[in-house]
Amino acid sequence: MRETEIVQRIRDLAGSAHRNHSILKGIGDDCAILRPGPNEDLVFTTDFILQDRHFTLDTHKPSQIGHKALARGLSDLAAMGSDPVFCLVSLAVPQTLPPRWIDAFYKGLLTLANKHKVSLAGGDLSQFEKIIVDVMCCGRVSRGKAILRSGAKPGDRIFVTGNLGAAARSRWMRKIEPRIMEGRALRGRVSAGMDLSDGLSLDLHRLCLESGVSAVLESGAIPIAHGATLEQALHGGEDYELLFTAAPGTKLPDLSISQIGIVTKGKPGEIMLDKIPLPPRGFDHFA
Amino acid sequence: MRETEIVQRIRDLAGSAHRNHSILKGIGDDCAILRPGPNEDLVFTTDFILQDRHFTLDTHKPSQIGHKALARGLSDLAAMGSDPVFCLVSLAVPQTLPPRWIDAFYKGLLTLANKHKVSLAGGDLSQFEKIIVDVMCCGRVSRGKAILRSGAKPGDRIFVTGNLGAAARSRWMRKIEPRIMEGRALRGRVSAGMDLSDGLSLDLHRLCLESGVSAVLESGAIPIAHGATLEQALHGGEDYELLFTAAPGTKLPDLSISQIGIVTKGKPGEIMLDKIPLPPRGFDHFA
Repeated sequence: MRETEIVQRIRDLAGSAHRNHSILKGIGDDCAILRPGPNEDLVFTTDFILQDRHFTLDTHKPSQIGHKALARGLSDLAAMGSDPVFCLVSLAVPQTLPPRWIDAFYKGLLTLANKHKVSLAGGDLSQFEKIIVDVMCCGRVSRGKAILRSGAKPGDRIFVTGNLGAAARSRWMRKIEPRIMEGRALRGRVSAGMDLSDGLSLDLHRLCLESGVSAVLESGAIPIAHGATLEQALHGGEDYELLFTAAPGTKLPDLSISQIGIVTKGKPGEIMLDKIPLPPRGFDHFA
Repeated sequence: MRETEIVQRIRDLAGSAHRNHSILKGIGDDCAILRPGPNEDLVFTTDFILQDRHFTLDTHKPSQIGHKALARGLSDLAAMGSDPVFCLVSLAVPQTLPPRWIDAFYKGLLTLANKHKVSLAGGDLSQFEKIIVDVMCCGRVSRGKAILRSGAKPGDRIFVTGNLGAAARSRWMRKIEPRIMEGRALRGRVSAGMDLSDGLSLDLHRLCLESGVSAVLESGAIPIAHGATLEQALHGGEDYELLFTAAPGTKLPDLSISQIGIVTKGKPGEIMLDKIPLPPRGFDHFA
């Protein structure tokens, strides 16, 4: 199969999927073109999915890989409280990979894209000995309203959406549901936020570092997923729930959320769990 | 070296480099944040650079790889007639790669970024058995002024910047100089344009397809780089010059450009060279 045929196939798939009205030009030129709306900020993130590191051909169907590749970026958009707009997909595959794999990959990705009204606006295609995916996601948010990691203040309450640790039990198989709706509902109400991709202990450490604060957690308050351990909930990673802080008395939307602790003045980044220091032991992409 | 140390190092390097005023938040949150200006469109492109496909560790220094990784995207921004704004860099490297390699890679990339006032606003970092780079570039252009592939009309003249075929002579070693200044000067004057990454025969074929036109070229008019052959100028690829069309009588800026042919009515995508059909034989990324 030649590149032009594959690109045409992807273009057809993308063309029959959701097209965000702000995308003036999608696949087919040197660049995609976006016309920003008035009074909006745009947010951007990019995430790798690599064969034998984030998935294997034995354990994942191509549609699951397509879903996961987009879901990780959408989770970052959710963390900023933004509405998804478009994505660019860079894909490298071995020449021996059957065309139906590529087809199923894009179908899985576009099913999730359609659900969240994300346009597939472009990307890159190459040949490589293993499958490599890099997805760039763009979201929009009203000016100055993006949720940052840096806004937590002593006295703020610390919350998470959903339950933690489920991914650590079955890391490779779980379907990520990006918390787009939750991020949108929290926008304008919370003081800081991020998504839980590398584990609560490491991610909360990062949020506290950016905010210049420390945190106190209570193990009894942490919502542990059915069948998971406290250890998995603290350090497991890949939960893709939202972690956020809010000033006391803030009216929060009616979501599945749990208060797990309080922001304190102290050494930036330090976390105490049940009065004992909690080391940031989450997932290191580079270890 | 842990991920946090590497990210901190990249953040320091990016922080001391150019910071575009429209980037509200760079490295350090879930997403980068851009505040668009009034009456502008934004353009986006993404390009892979893969070890042993686009470079080897024997033939390329890390600073050259950093330069090339950004230059390919900037060439796409130039093709749209846009001004570069920011980039996101996804990098995966083997654990055995020395930290000084990563340092030199980012320094090479940031030297080119500073030259064109591009902010390094974020990215992703992972570990993999070979070096993988994916760079997303964003540019801005006045509303509706982006140069597209689809605007060429019968009777328009066909031009290229610079000389062609030099890259085919020494494909891996040549330093790409993206034609940002030229693209900016051509914006608003030309009817269609793109960058020459995969060879004149294939790229002009694509431009003609998008415009629904055909083209007539004269071999004697094609500016062949010193020491290169006509064959290399037609099919070599990686020249990263600009290919564009303009209505007859258009006043073109004072640049190093050559008229190589004329747009004609005919079978979309068909190219005649000295009255003989020229097949699109340029570089297929997937072959």
